[in-house]
Amino acid sequence: MKTKIAVIGAGSWGTALAKVLEENGHEPILYSNVEEQIKEINEQHTNKTFLPELVISKNIKGTTDLKEALEDAQVVLFVVPTKVTRMVAKQVAELLTDKVILVTASKGLEQQTHKRISTILEEEIPENKRAGVVALSGPSHAEEVAVNDLTTITAASSDMDAAEKIQQLFMNDYMRIYTNKDIVGVEYGAALKNIIALGAGALAGLGYGDNAKAALITRGLAEISRLGIAFGADPLTFIGLSGVGDLIVTCTSIHSRNWQAGNMIGKGHSLDEVLGSMGMVVEGASTVVAAYELAREKNIEMPITEAIYDVLYNNADVRETIVALMNRDPKSEAHSKD
Amino acid sequence: MKTKIAVIGAGSWGTALAKVLEENGHEPILYSNVEEQIKEINEQHTNKTFLPELVISKNIKGTTDLKEALEDAQVVLFVVPTKVTRMVAKQVAELLTDKVILVTASKGLEQQTHKRISTILEEEIPENKRAGVVALSGPSHAEEVAVNDLTTITAASSDMDAAEKIQQLFMNDYMRIYTNKDIVGVEYGAALKNIIALGAGALAGLGYGDNAKAALITRGLAEISRLGIAFGADPLTFIGLSGVGDLIVTCTSIHSRNWQAGNMIGKGHSLDEVLGSMGMVVEGASTVVAAYELAREKNIEMPITEAIYDVLYNNADVRETIVALMNRDPKSEAHSKD
Repeated sequence: MKTKIAVIGAGSWGTALAKVLEENGHEPILYSNVEEQIKEINEQHTNKTFLPELVISKNIKGTTDLKEALEDAQVVLFVVPTKVTRMVAKQVAELLTDKVILVTASKGLEQQTHKRISTILEEEIPENKRAGVVALSGPSHAEEVAVNDLTTITAASSDMDAAEKIQQLFMNDYMRIYTNKDIVGVEYGAALKNIIALGAGALAGLGYGDNAKAALITRGLAEISRLGIAFGADPLTFIGLSGVGDLIVTCTSIHSRNWQAGNMIGKGHSLDEVLGSMGMVVEGASTVVAAYELAREKNIEMPITEAIYDVLYNNADVRETIVALMNRDPKSEAHSKD
Repeated sequence: MKTKIAVIGAGSWGTALAKVLEENGHEPILYSNVEEQIKEINEQHTNKTFLPELVISKNIKGTTDLKEALEDAQVVLFVVPTKVTRMVAKQVAELLTDKVILVTASKGLEQQTHKRISTILEEEIPENKRAGVVALSGPSHAEEVAVNDLTTITAASSDMDAAEKIQQLFMNDYMRIYTNKDIVGVEYGAALKNIIALGAGALAGLGYGDNAKAALITRGLAEISRLGIAFGADPLTFIGLSGVGDLIVTCTSIHSRNWQAGNMIGKGHSLDEVLGSMGMVVEGASTVVAAYELAREKNIEMPITEAIYDVLYNNADVRETIVALMNRDPKSEAHSKD
């Protein structure tokens, strides 16, 4: 059955997901408030800033009119930066007339409230306008989805009907969707891995090799899991696609923006310089603030998060801080908290 | 206290570990039965076949005389291919006069018996000649240890005194050693990750990208854990350094021989061609036989292991087999066995 999906946000991931939906016979419409970008999508059928190589199907329409995007949509897919999610969700709530499945495909925590994206959506969009909230997450660089490279992701929701509907919409021979009930664990894994990617990038920028990178990822997985579990996540989620899977791809792939940003920081650039030169959102740089504060609040040891926070926001020297992080006194693996 | 350590096997890892021990003020002696190699170590102070860039300290002696290597040694470190471990252990047992700590730093399962390396050592070296058996494992390319790049590994033993002694011998500012009681989990993780690395290499050789690689590693971790747990391993070991840490470095680093071998197989070369061209041991190619048979015996689902086995030993087409593996019908993450 052909389904209309409002894709809110026309960055690389929103565009790649719209492509998958169109190829599966559905009707995605791409919403952005950037006139020029929508004009390019509708007239040139490209989105060169975000996915330079992609030719977008003529069946995929772009619009700057949120009302048009939402009209008759059965699913609303949020793929906007975390910091604007609440604002956009308010706008969506005002325009919705029927119940829709809400999906988030972004990865972060709200900076002031430390909330997960699905929580923001639930707070801003009243219950009578939604039929379940689903988080889509997993190791999935948009650049690879754009060329039909095999990709596996998780559709997580406390509402299994909603998760299965989203699974069906996206599933095809190169996109494999697994459902998962643990949306809490999936969203924490998704958000927090970007912090570890900043660390892995910084480590490489400082000249460390693959042995050190693997150690950092392993310890990163442990600290992500500790925070998520403290908020009710299932520990097993962190060894699944949205946990270790996404962590690996983000920390070891040349496509990762968070890794790239960390790499520049490791080479001595300031956060402002890095953000200025990236031209895309570096979610880890704001998520680290939320994670740092959550860890303090819940008294959870998160040494990598603390180190990245100190480098980004407390003027800590990157080399000294990373060296100190990697040299924390190790004893037994089981007893160690880091 | 200066300790004499007999390092049995002068490949890249044995040589790198001897270097660490010497730098820590101990007395490693490198044993190999290859006359030319020992001559090179003693006269040129290099081991160019295995670590081309390394200048070996003049304090590190090489010998082809096993008796000389073992004389007064308090620790015997086995760094030989898995398939010759039993034979070498028999020779060592005959020559030992005092109790020594036995350490294995190789990664594999014995092909006919499917046994772990520490089990082989315990079977061949009588109790009155050993003071504990320790497995050293973790994300540790020898090439990086050779240049003092930060490396973290696990010293695992059911005998914590022995594990802590080994920890002290190797620990310095670039080598961080964690102890772990779960030698079973550490050894299964070490052995089985080489199979997943073959799969990751094959995937890349077939042209798949990072999203697919991350999915394979995630599912690989699950199947390694299933087998290990069936033999009594602690599930937590598989998310530690010797589990996911070593798996990541082996599947994503250019230094990995098993990944390189898998990559050639993905590009259409036969196993014989690959082994002929490598000039080093590819442990995964024999470990996969043991793992395949163990999985059948215990009725454990190990789809990646089965796929690699079929490609290497049943003439299965690599592209068809890997495509089938990646396209197994996924449902829920929690309920799926793959």
